[in-house]
Amino acid sequence: MAGPQLTDDAAQELLATALDLADAARTAVLPYFRAQDLAADNKATAGFDPVTAADHAAESAMRAILAARRPQDAILGEEGGATAGTSGLTWVLDPIDGTRAFLAGAPTWGVLIALSDVTGPRIGVIDQPWTGERFVGTPTGAWMDGPRGRQALTTRPARPLEQAILLSTFPEIGTDAERAAFQELSARCRLTRYGLDCYAYALIAAGQIDLVVEAGLHPYDIHAPIAVIEAAGGVVTDWRGGPAHGGGRVLAAANPSIHAEALAILSRA
Amino acid sequence: MAGPQLTDDAAQELLATALDLADAARTAVLPYFRAQDLAADNKATAGFDPVTAADHAAESAMRAILAARRPQDAILGEEGGATAGTSGLTWVLDPIDGTRAFLAGAPTWGVLIALSDVTGPRIGVIDQPWTGERFVGTPTGAWMDGPRGRQALTTRPARPLEQAILLSTFPEIGTDAERAAFQELSARCRLTRYGLDCYAYALIAAGQIDLVVEAGLHPYDIHAPIAVIEAAGGVVTDWRGGPAHGGGRVLAAANPSIHAEALAILSRA
Repeated sequence: MAGPQLTDDAAQELLATALDLADAARTAVLPYFRAQDLAADNKATAGFDPVTAADHAAESAMRAILAARRPQDAILGEEGGATAGTSGLTWVLDPIDGTRAFLAGAPTWGVLIALSDVTGPRIGVIDQPWTGERFVGTPTGAWMDGPRGRQALTTRPARPLEQAILLSTFPEIGTDAERAAFQELSARCRLTRYGLDCYAYALIAAGQIDLVVEAGLHPYDIHAPIAVIEAAGGVVTDWRGGPAHGGGRVLAAANPSIHAEALAILSRA
Repeated sequence: MAGPQLTDDAAQELLATALDLADAARTAVLPYFRAQDLAADNKATAGFDPVTAADHAAESAMRAILAARRPQDAILGEEGGATAGTSGLTWVLDPIDGTRAFLAGAPTWGVLIALSDVTGPRIGVIDQPWTGERFVGTPTGAWMDGPRGRQALTTRPARPLEQAILLSTFPEIGTDAERAAFQELSARCRLTRYGLDCYAYALIAAGQIDLVVEAGLHPYDIHAPIAVIEAAGGVVTDWRGGPAHGGGRVLAAANPSIHAEALAILSRA
């Protein structure tokens, strides 16, 4: 691993913990998916930002495992906020990224789990419990487990923007200036699609698409995707080319070449 | 079945044929999904309308079954066009609805199979091979087969627009007037999501969402969804309240009440 060195045994224990967290979240959350009359509280003062019992159940299940096995690590969770630690490592958890997709019954939400240090994310898991797909990135490799068993994850090779597929969750992205930059980029690409939440990042890692562009992200939305995409050969930055793990505006790309092409457009915003 | 009467045996044979078509299409198409370097021809003179080997393979597989078992029936297929028949029944086939999603690796495309007579669709299948979900509607019932086994499909009960979830494939829907009407409806709803192709119709039938609104559809895009949604308790019309199986502008709703609310807005376009 980059940053502070860990022994192989320590790295293996951290990966095993991440996968156990994903298993626990999957078990906790699946009974709520497509349940009738799922209650959705409105935690936003304006707009629609649902919090469901499923979010809480999944994050609680993950926190219980960490309390028992990794009490020395900090936690940053979407639902439970920040819990301090002493190890310099932080588990960054989003129990359901894409709560709106979850509420609509669409299998494009995911459980996001990252292990990060001060330099950024180092292990990432994007788990889709309904399809049974799990995308994992570590400093030594990236793979998915799914309908075809285990497969290595490798991002797409470089191609011109004019042949690229661009994904974003919302067409009404960001501010006016951000939206204008996004639309300029979109007009250059072969195909733009909306609405996939964290699944879009998994599709970059899986070599299916070229770009994901979003704005207004929280750190827990992007830590796990960064680790998975970088391990598969991609590049994730903000719209200025700096680190993306603080959240905000994110440009995820399949390779350095197309990242540079997209950045040249987005950096004007 | 409504329309010309069929014996129970005949109806069972037609349903069995529809399911065999879905099996054959699934087998034909899955090897192409997320394959590296899938070739996409450009069959549109403007824009991007990919046709892949997967489309052709799936439709050919289905046509071979129909030629052997139902030579008396007509066929209308997205790829192969119209084949005449003598029975008054037509198989309406879209081997991959959502080719763009397919090319992006997103599991929101589907195989659409309908059996229709002059009055409209009577049996419908929406099949998602990657997730293993199959949504079926017949004059005597609607069900899905998926990760939880077989489950009956029932649409959502009535609720005000302000609590509704609306789905559409493209935010840049239709003409300016159509887009304005769509946006007025969207502004009234609790949540609008994009990009799910035929999976959106399956989610109405499954009781997860309230409305799907689209424009510019072909008949083969909508025959199967009509049969599945109506069998599950929903309503599908055009934007004037007339039959939708001719394609064009489609309003699919979970129940007559919310259909009327949405129609009141869309019918002004």
